[in-house]
Amino acid sequence: MLIDINEANARAITAIQAAQPIIKGIGTCGEVVPGMKKNLILHAGPPITWEKMSGPMRGAVIGGLMYEGLAGSQEEAEKLAAGGSIEFSPWHEHDGVGPMAGVATASMPVWIVENKSNGRCTFCTLNEGLGKVLRYGAFSKEVIERLIWIEKVLGPVLKEALTHCREINLKNMITQALQMGDEVHNRNKAATSLLIRELAPAVVKTSFKNEEKEKVLSFIHSNDHFFLNLSMPACKAMLQAAEWIDGSTIVTTMSRNGTEFGIRISGLKDRWFTGPALIVKGLLFPGFNDEDCNPDIGDSAITETCGLGGFSMAAAPAIVKFVGGSVGDAMNFTRKMYEITDAESDSFHIPPLDFRGSPLGINLLKVCEKNILPQINTGIAHRLPGVGQVGAGLVNPPAKCFEDALEAYVETWCKDL
Amino acid sequence: MLIDINEANARAITAIQAAQPIIKGIGTCGEVVPGMKKNLILHAGPPITWEKMSGPMRGAVIGGLMYEGLAGSQEEAEKLAAGGSIEFSPWHEHDGVGPMAGVATASMPVWIVENKSNGRCTFCTLNEGLGKVLRYGAFSKEVIERLIWIEKVLGPVLKEALTHCREINLKNMITQALQMGDEVHNRNKAATSLLIRELAPAVVKTSFKNEEKEKVLSFIHSNDHFFLNLSMPACKAMLQAAEWIDGSTIVTTMSRNGTEFGIRISGLKDRWFTGPALIVKGLLFPGFNDEDCNPDIGDSAITETCGLGGFSMAAAPAIVKFVGGSVGDAMNFTRKMYEITDAESDSFHIPPLDFRGSPLGINLLKVCEKNILPQINTGIAHRLPGVGQVGAGLVNPPAKCFEDALEAYVETWCKDL
Repeated sequence: MLIDINEANARAITAIQAAQPIIKGIGTCGEVVPGMKKNLILHAGPPITWEKMSGPMRGAVIGGLMYEGLAGSQEEAEKLAAGGSIEFSPWHEHDGVGPMAGVATASMPVWIVENKSNGRCTFCTLNEGLGKVLRYGAFSKEVIERLIWIEKVLGPVLKEALTHCREINLKNMITQALQMGDEVHNRNKAATSLLIRELAPAVVKTSFKNEEKEKVLSFIHSNDHFFLNLSMPACKAMLQAAEWIDGSTIVTTMSRNGTEFGIRISGLKDRWFTGPALIVKGLLFPGFNDEDCNPDIGDSAITETCGLGGFSMAAAPAIVKFVGGSVGDAMNFTRKMYEITDAESDSFHIPPLDFRGSPLGINLLKVCEKNILPQINTGIAHRLPGVGQVGAGLVNPPAKCFEDALEAYVETWCKDL
Repeated sequence: MLIDINEANARAITAIQAAQPIIKGIGTCGEVVPGMKKNLILHAGPPITWEKMSGPMRGAVIGGLMYEGLAGSQEEAEKLAAGGSIEFSPWHEHDGVGPMAGVATASMPVWIVENKSNGRCTFCTLNEGLGKVLRYGAFSKEVIERLIWIEKVLGPVLKEALTHCREINLKNMITQALQMGDEVHNRNKAATSLLIRELAPAVVKTSFKNEEKEKVLSFIHSNDHFFLNLSMPACKAMLQAAEWIDGSTIVTTMSRNGTEFGIRISGLKDRWFTGPALIVKGLLFPGFNDEDCNPDIGDSAITETCGLGGFSMAAAPAIVKFVGGSVGDAMNFTRKMYEITDAESDSFHIPPLDFRGSPLGINLLKVCEKNILPQINTGIAHRLPGVGQVGAGLVNPPAKCFEDALEAYVETWCKDL
């Protein structure tokens, strides 16, 4: 079979460009996420067993089991997780994404994002805020109590508010945020603000008590990363449209479970190509040093896969105060990413680069040929369970993912040549 | 008397840098603005008579008199305005500022901004939104009805909400907005968003009906320029701290009444130096052409006087889609303004210029010596009363203001040399 790679990749790019992710609503993970069940824990990155999980992912699993009432203590949770009755599966194999550890359990409310161009949905939990939070591996009483509040109040209030809102087009919101200094991975301040503007009047209209409405609006306001859990499923929805196109070498997934980094390629369907997750170089919070840092973790590299995050850092010069580097570095990261991508986004523009479209569609062949790895910016989790975030910085995938994927691609699609 | 100009200017700059403008609250213009009374109309720019007023300012005066119930029709209002019983005075002579026509009457609610470093207050009306609005010279029924709603609902809701809010430091908010692509003159999208984030939970807490709260939040959300009426009194508060310093050549006011452009110099106290207001070059809304444009109008050039607006366009590349020009032009405007200013802001930073402080403290001597005029971006009003905005663009002051001010400065401070 003779494959026209360029034609296949053009189809993938067209599908990404055409995607129109909107907020469809909020549902309960166990009810709306395909294949979800009570004894299943979804997590970030490629597949992994309890034994191989890093500290922060273990911490999040412990917290998830306690939140679900399946375990009463850390010890019980660890025993249960190791015992075989709890199953683990990557979010990416259930049409969703999770930031950092990315742990989701059946009772958690999730955003439902629909790509209006193909009718398919993607999912993500609601962002918990800063400090001690499950996604960074914390599982203290305050973490569990907050998760319960998210389930009982935040989720229901937002669910009803969305019925009073005009349709929220996430692509359009991200386009605006890029003109306001976000790259919607580690800087979501503008997008979170734009979201609050849409939601606030609708929250007022809900049937909840004023105390609850006020707490919901204050909670979102307190967390500039709140929009991350929408930018991620929006990017997933856009890339989902490019999955499983025969012969395409476009990267559709980049994600990490804290132990391994995994990628998937459009023409290689659901196969994962993995390598060891690397240590993130960046700015650490006071009191932490390099030994505290867990390797790269989380599905949030879906933003880079979609040409945002590290790929659009030129739009977000202020991010260097958070992840390190200079404004010049930020400009150069974006410029460099054009070398490994096939297109420029029709929707996302980089104002300081004269509104050039963001670099879109990572081409496996270009990554291998030019030996340029995708540029990712990311949060850093403490390597032990129960601690939380220690900083943020810059990282690349291991080259092995791409080398292995190239080999598999040649075996799959170039056998007859 | 021998004056140390550098020392005088350093004092002015220090006072501007030290200023901490915060939102103190909302009051009624007639009650809180010094010297305000029922038969007085405040307006933008240097002093002007009814006879010499441009169309949009006349339109705003007509609307103001009808809103106050002093006239029942356009004809009655015109007769009243021309008759001598109504007085006119510049906002700048009452510690305030007004965008475009800048017309304020006694019943209008106004923001009260306090500079915490000296305890002095400045004032500005609440922004009316887009389309047909008083500040652009419109005075139709919908304009007057909206002004009444602002007086009866928006003002009171925000006044009470502010009592439930933590203190809003406008300098800090502007600092953040500059990292989010605003220059807080013609781009206030980020700052408006940040303001909504602060206000929304507090609005929920007020004693008003849900319908009113919802309408207030929707009204602010519908208008990306809402923050302009806070950035202006914040800038006025900062510059007020530098007024009337013996021998200083720092420009403390640049403003336009639609007929004349006027400036004031710190060491020359309350003296106005005026020249004809110029035509703004920019992007016009569909259906309008150059002949529709009124000359430059409004107190909003207080933002440029404070190193924002046109002086900080490099922070707001997306503004070129609104006022015209290229991203390169925006960068160059900011770079050029360092040549006529004495300092760089300690608080306001330009991310694309590696966080350089914005150009602060226009020095009359440098403007005249280098023959570089301040760069202003601004809205454009239709030249006829009753129409409204026709576009936005770029403009400079007439050189005559600075030439006359220099002459007066030499006469005042250099007599003995």
